[in-house]
Amino acid sequence: MEGKSTDKKDYNTCSLNYALKLISSKWKLPIIWALSQNKKLRYNELRREVSGITNMMLAQSLKELESQGIVLRIQYMEIPPRVEYSLGESGQELIDALSPLTKWGKRMKDKSL
Amino acid sequence: MEGKSTDKKDYNTCSLNYALKLISSKWKLPIIWALSQNKKLRYNELRREVSGITNMMLAQSLKELESQGIVLRIQYMEIPPRVEYSLGESGQELIDALSPLTKWGKRMKDKSL
Repeated sequence: MEGKSTDKKDYNTCSLNYALKLISSKWKLPIIWALSQNKKLRYNELRREVSGITNMMLAQSLKELESQGIVLRIQYMEIPPRVEYSLGESGQELIDALSPLTKWGKRMKDKSL
Repeated sequence: MEGKSTDKKDYNTCSLNYALKLISSKWKLPIIWALSQNKKLRYNELRREVSGITNMMLAQSLKELESQGIVLRIQYMEIPPRVEYSLGESGQELIDALSPLTKWGKRMKDKSL
């Protein structure tokens, strides 16, 4: 019984740590947030939305977020080629999952004023 | 209209950042987690639950968490005096608010296997 409870604990902490690690880099949440507010953005639009980000960090973050299914990269076969970024299913689910934490943060901030 | 939307965006990101800052230190989540699993813990019990934490870090983290209303410190007027720590209202709300993010982390981890 006690072993079972420890398993559950480790397992939950582990999933939460995994989530926090996925979003904890300086730029990932701002990128995800910009895409959640704008539905679709081209690379240069995204770079303007995420103020202060360098090309290297944006390209690298997008690559990682794409590989995790959080961000979708859609390339249109036009001339000149057009690429748009939007939130993937996991990215939309993340935005929803962060909503209670955002509300908690707001309550805590209001209390501290 | 556009100004309003920008306000909303900044405001939401800001509340989320505030929440993440409150819980982002290495030891706070493990302490909160241990208290959520055990209801009440004395200092030494808590120290055993949070493996690897030093006295200095535990005392400092508890002080901060207490001042934010996340952790309650109850001192019983006994001889010798007994002190117990438990989750405060904000701490319990935090555990609830983290649940969707934990579930998201689990889904992401399962996908990556």
